[in-house]
Amino acid sequence: MSVATVADRQWMAAALKLAAQGMYSTSPNPRVGCILVKDGEAIGEGWHQKAGEPHAEVLALRAAGDNARGATAYVTLEPCSHYGRTPPCAEGLIKAGVSRVVAAVCDPNPDVAGRGFQMLREAGIEVVERCLEDQASAINEGFMKRMRTGLPLVRMKLAMSLDGRTAMASGQSQWITGPEARRDVQRLRAQSCAVITGADSVLIDNPSMTVRSEEAGLTIPADLQRQPLRVIVDGEHRVNASAKIFAQAGDILIASRVAPTTPVERDANSGNLTYWAGEKNDRTDLSGLLRHLAEQGHNEILVESGAQLAGAFVRAGLVDELIVYCAPTILGSDARPLLSLPIGDMAAQIRWRWQDVRMVGDDLRLTMRPELQSSPDKA
Amino acid sequence: MSVATVADRQWMAAALKLAAQGMYSTSPNPRVGCILVKDGEAIGEGWHQKAGEPHAEVLALRAAGDNARGATAYVTLEPCSHYGRTPPCAEGLIKAGVSRVVAAVCDPNPDVAGRGFQMLREAGIEVVERCLEDQASAINEGFMKRMRTGLPLVRMKLAMSLDGRTAMASGQSQWITGPEARRDVQRLRAQSCAVITGADSVLIDNPSMTVRSEEAGLTIPADLQRQPLRVIVDGEHRVNASAKIFAQAGDILIASRVAPTTPVERDANSGNLTYWAGEKNDRTDLSGLLRHLAEQGHNEILVESGAQLAGAFVRAGLVDELIVYCAPTILGSDARPLLSLPIGDMAAQIRWRWQDVRMVGDDLRLTMRPELQSSPDKA
Repeated sequence: MSVATVADRQWMAAALKLAAQGMYSTSPNPRVGCILVKDGEAIGEGWHQKAGEPHAEVLALRAAGDNARGATAYVTLEPCSHYGRTPPCAEGLIKAGVSRVVAAVCDPNPDVAGRGFQMLREAGIEVVERCLEDQASAINEGFMKRMRTGLPLVRMKLAMSLDGRTAMASGQSQWITGPEARRDVQRLRAQSCAVITGADSVLIDNPSMTVRSEEAGLTIPADLQRQPLRVIVDGEHRVNASAKIFAQAGDILIASRVAPTTPVERDANSGNLTYWAGEKNDRTDLSGLLRHLAEQGHNEILVESGAQLAGAFVRAGLVDELIVYCAPTILGSDARPLLSLPIGDMAAQIRWRWQDVRMVGDDLRLTMRPELQSSPDKA
Repeated sequence: MSVATVADRQWMAAALKLAAQGMYSTSPNPRVGCILVKDGEAIGEGWHQKAGEPHAEVLALRAAGDNARGATAYVTLEPCSHYGRTPPCAEGLIKAGVSRVVAAVCDPNPDVAGRGFQMLREAGIEVVERCLEDQASAINEGFMKRMRTGLPLVRMKLAMSLDGRTAMASGQSQWITGPEARRDVQRLRAQSCAVITGADSVLIDNPSMTVRSEEAGLTIPADLQRQPLRVIVDGEHRVNASAKIFAQAGDILIASRVAPTTPVERDANSGNLTYWAGEKNDRTDLSGLLRHLAEQGHNEILVESGAQLAGAFVRAGLVDELIVYCAPTILGSDARPLLSLPIGDMAAQIRWRWQDVRMVGDDLRLTMRPELQSSPDKA
């Protein structure tokens, strides 16, 4: 088994930086970067921009031309072995005469899953696997989870006061957190394939739920900008076409308990409006909805909702990452709770582990992962 | 006006380290360190240990002996100019023939307040003031505040879940935070002159409220260990002698709205039990209580109470520093609030500024100071 050298890891780190350029545009595909190196120099590089466009390896090979013969290819994900929208990259690397391939992570896509490496080895190419594997997995965590489990990665964003409140009893809430935190949320939205909100939020806060790249300070090339699918969980069909969310460009999915009898009418020029229905315990089936979103190719989901829906997601154990913006303010004991989530006994508390803690402007951003996959529902 | 050199600041930093050794024992006196330096070498040092014991300057002069002639004295606080329990240190420095005095901060004690510097200068000694003044003020913030305002420094410690809850609806609460956070609280208690709790806490949680130095990992010499005064705010005289707090050694003060008709009977061997009464808006007068504690020489107070009393202190704008231990767990929307503090309007929110954020074991410790001195009471 070949092992990665220090130089291999340095080149792979550079390839991961390339891959990260696809942060806001590659889905349903993973973010991938590739660098071809010969005699210690990069002779071609590329990163996958979006579905239907060339894979990273193809772009790097194009840049290198005939010079690719005898080079080492650094790829952040196993080169594909199947004919999809493009021919298999493993084949491309073989034809170009690359002599060595260093890869970060095996492609969990059942159409690839090791066959890419196998093709390369059968062609006499030296293959090094698992070079900076953790970093490469992290950059495509949503894609990996979807391929392995049929569910997307679910992030939940919450904004609260120091005492865990989100609004006054009257509903008055704008703004608890500062402009930097709100810009940070734009970045989270931009890297998500879909954003889920609830009927309550649409009816009360009337948000647009779109990505405003400029406001967020994101420098995404115009042709790579996209709007995440906006999903409204509206169990009882309470929202109507007058909501601001329908006026903004971009696709919308309404998820409910049962299919609507009178669908919302929306100006077709603004984007597609589709429906999904599924019921569990007399409510919209949230895990069914997530499974549906994964089937549609959504890798990363952001939940931005009120206390009710957020509480339901947490209770069902469906949240992979909790991102809480905490403002240094006290809203008092009459103010609204962070989550609508009654828990009776200390033993049923829902524990997390800290992932990251940092200042974002005047607010503190707390990122957490579940301590265990158990949830009160299962208790 | 003489100015501190780099070497002066280095010696002063060392003197501040000496002063900090008095963290748990000097009150009602300030923490003070002193180093005598001659020809670039320390020839004597000292720190004030506790009231009645020699001042830092006296110890440093004793260590240096005749060698003090012509030396520079680094003192973290202006040398005293008055006859208290000990003769004035300014006089001691003059008699020893010290040629230069570098001081960090002027003593706000009205009995000193610049007169120490004046005595030294009149004796022909070069005096440098304000060397590391901020650091020296911070180490004696409680003493400084008491001298300037007649009120002690008030810290409030709270422990909560991620969603701002302190206990289940049933009252079940042990333990939300981990052992490291609880040890950290012991340290806060140990550096406080008095710890305030409420009748609710005494009746429900039945705490001892003592400092357990060993458990806290504090290496305080046995003769410098002290128990902070334990103050029970018991407006309606609900606590009785059976509470655990009375069984532990150390003094206790019961603060109430009006003086009791039947005082609590306590075993005199355990420590003094005194009373204080004061009323404001039909409740125990908290600012009056603080003023009383300051008059008794208490520099730093720690409030460790339930939601009701903690809410009252915050509402009255009496908290100088909020220390919140946040555990990565969700207790749910039925659980008890951080503070019993109803606020009706967003405009009346109570804003803080972050002072320090760090992990203490598995918990996050958030330290805050008030953004403004305004409070809802004053609105």
